Amino acid sequence: MAVGLGPLPTLHPVPGFELGIASAGIKRPGRKDVVVMRCAEGSSVAGVFTLNAFCAAPVILSKQRVQGTVRYLLTNTGNANAGTGAPGLAAAERTCAKLAALAGVPAESVLPFSTGVIGEPLPVEKIEGALQAALDNLSENHWAEAATGIMTTDTLPKGASRQFQHDGVTVTVTGISKGAGMIRPNMATMLGYIATDAKVAPAVLKDLMLDGANKSFNRITIDGDTSTNDCCMLIATGKANLPEVTEASGALFEALKKAVFEVCMEVAQAIVRDGEGATKFVTVQVNGGGNHQECLDVGYAVAHSPLIKTALFASDPNWGRILAAVGRAGVPELDVSLIDVYLDSVCIASQGGRSPSYTEAQGSAVMAQEEITIRIELGRGACSETIWTTDLSHEYVKINAEYRT
Amino acid sequence: MAVGLGPLPTLHPVPGFELGIASAGIKRPGRKDVVVMRCAEGSSVAGVFTLNAFCAAPVILSKQRVQGTVRYLLTNTGNANAGTGAPGLAAAERTCAKLAALAGVPAESVLPFSTGVIGEPLPVEKIEGALQAALDNLSENHWAEAATGIMTTDTLPKGASRQFQHDGVTVTVTGISKGAGMIRPNMATMLGYIATDAKVAPAVLKDLMLDGANKSFNRITIDGDTSTNDCCMLIATGKANLPEVTEASGALFEALKKAVFEVCMEVAQAIVRDGEGATKFVTVQVNGGGNHQECLDVGYAVAHSPLIKTALFASDPNWGRILAAVGRAGVPELDVSLIDVYLDSVCIASQGGRSPSYTEAQGSAVMAQEEITIRIELGRGACSETIWTTDLSHEYVKINAEYRT
Repeated sequence: MAVGLGPLPTLHPVPGFELGIASAGIKRPGRKDVVVMRCAEGSSVAGVFTLNAFCAAPVILSKQRVQGTVRYLLTNTGNANAGTGAPGLAAAERTCAKLAALAGVPAESVLPFSTGVIGEPLPVEKIEGALQAALDNLSENHWAEAATGIMTTDTLPKGASRQFQHDGVTVTVTGISKGAGMIRPNMATMLGYIATDAKVAPAVLKDLMLDGANKSFNRITIDGDTSTNDCCMLIATGKANLPEVTEASGALFEALKKAVFEVCMEVAQAIVRDGEGATKFVTVQVNGGGNHQECLDVGYAVAHSPLIKTALFASDPNWGRILAAVGRAGVPELDVSLIDVYLDSVCIASQGGRSPSYTEAQGSAVMAQEEITIRIELGRGACSETIWTTDLSHEYVKINAEYRT
Repeated sequence: MAVGLGPLPTLHPVPGFELGIASAGIKRPGRKDVVVMRCAEGSSVAGVFTLNAFCAAPVILSKQRVQGTVRYLLTNTGNANAGTGAPGLAAAERTCAKLAALAGVPAESVLPFSTGVIGEPLPVEKIEGALQAALDNLSENHWAEAATGIMTTDTLPKGASRQFQHDGVTVTVTGISKGAGMIRPNMATMLGYIATDAKVAPAVLKDLMLDGANKSFNRITIDGDTSTNDCCMLIATGKANLPEVTEASGALFEALKKAVFEVCMEVAQAIVRDGEGATKFVTVQVNGGGNHQECLDVGYAVAHSPLIKTALFASDPNWGRILAAVGRAGVPELDVSLIDVYLDSVCIASQGGRSPSYTEAQGSAVMAQEEITIRIELGRGACSETIWTTDLSHEYVKINAEYRT
């Protein structure tokens, strides 16, 4: 059902960053459900993590350990190790310690990531049993395999890659992501891993990660549910033969920032395109806000409205539901007579009511498309925000009534 | 599909309040879609109205006119007269003026109410053509007919009635409501009309209406979408042979307040029981909050979560999704180790994880019921709030993908 999401693009290897996959049989025998990533010595690593108060054990551990030296990222699917209390934390520590022992690095340099069912004990032995195979499988060429290995209800793997030249040196930024439901990231997506061979100091890398995530992962929503396990990691191996990138690096900094942002955006939007039961890819653009928060309030009111989402599923240009959602978004002293609403370039509502020029045929033509932009002009100021979301289909209910998150 | 909602209970007539229905053929020929209510001379009337900024033309007019003398309430279904701008306001005024002329009262004493499709022009002539028939049909005994006349996607009419004795005089409170989707009232429900024959001054009646609505209509949610047309009206005809009720009236005031609240609660909960596609009636009770707002934030995060709602539909005790929703509700410095979560009397989670005593069989037994209470103990203070909601079913998607609100 993925909307406009094709096979994986070419994912350029990132020198100094290797990926290995293996099968622990967590949910199904034979499924590749363990992914190990190795960062070359000297790599910088930055991360953003869910703001959900019930954050999962691996999130707690990774948030601490990312402050120090990071050498390995250990990801399992099929079990989120969330809502598991102190035993969950101990379980995450055990899997990391086992990997560290096999790889000959300190336990604190291994960061755990889990996604899948909430509240079930992590099958530690199964994961431990798969670690050597994952290490043996490590290769800079295994991005595509890893993108598949981190999938849960995803129907397609998600990845993006950019390269640019600087002083005759090629710099690569490659990333993968997963997540199709329980998606309203708040600081990060379900899981995202982005690596570059640029050399970047940790503080600068952290800013690049925050900037990149803020307008991409933090602007997508499928069902409004912020996961307990959201994490996005940015790794800089420093293997490209270039000086360290700082904010004073000029063109190099700008090119890297652009590449990181584009990879973030492509893999974040891929999550929406593969949203559970999605039949539409919807851009909600709010312009003319007095501040950014009110643009976001309006955007999320529209993006989360079950009535708008079902109308999108039905390809029904039910613009009244859009007005109703804008009206209930809680914007103080909203003057509806200043508001215009567009479906793509078709003005459907103006001055608080149906646009005089609007015809149902125009609206239906836009709604029949797989990709739709709902644009709301608030007429209150100069701020804008954009959010990406999906429709709400029979398939969403089916998936979530049958799948144990 | 209504959950635990049977045929209408006995709706006792309220002396001085008459109801008449007629067919204007707005959406379907022959459907009773116009309801006229007459308040005896000297009645007090109070109302609560939607806070949606895109409130409908009839809401704008009724909010103004309820300040003055009210004699008639004119309701149509099939068209919400919302998102219709200045022409919509003129259309609402025209239908009221026509009714006023036929009834021989000032136009300002007629309050309009509309529910149905948003954004289509109100079919003024059709409504005008039905007004004489509605007037001819006026009777104190037509509550049940009116409850049916105000339905849209409702599958059953909704009403409740209470009587009490004071000084040998019987006082009656009877109410009806409608609404099954676009339900997250904010000051009122879709449409509710409650009448009593007690004599109550407007200021006191307003307080009774606010008190009654606040813990009933304002605590129900089906899909989180606040309608453009929500209104609830409370009419006191003063025909019961008793002194005027004030807050100093002691037992009489308390009895009236209790009866109004019970009628509000019964017709508000009836809306949830008849929620679009509802197969469950779910009470979300949040206790131990530091303040009321954080209880509501947690309650609505749970009640609006599509993942919890689909799990309820599937009768799946997926308690991890409940923890995840509590964790993302935005409560500051939430200590998850203090939180307990119950399904009815079964403790499913404690101290941030699965309860040691919990078994899947216990959870499944509760979830198999039609009526379920999710109780969340925050362990932060003494405040509580309760919200009523439904599950999210295939039928909800079907109804809203096919129906033009």
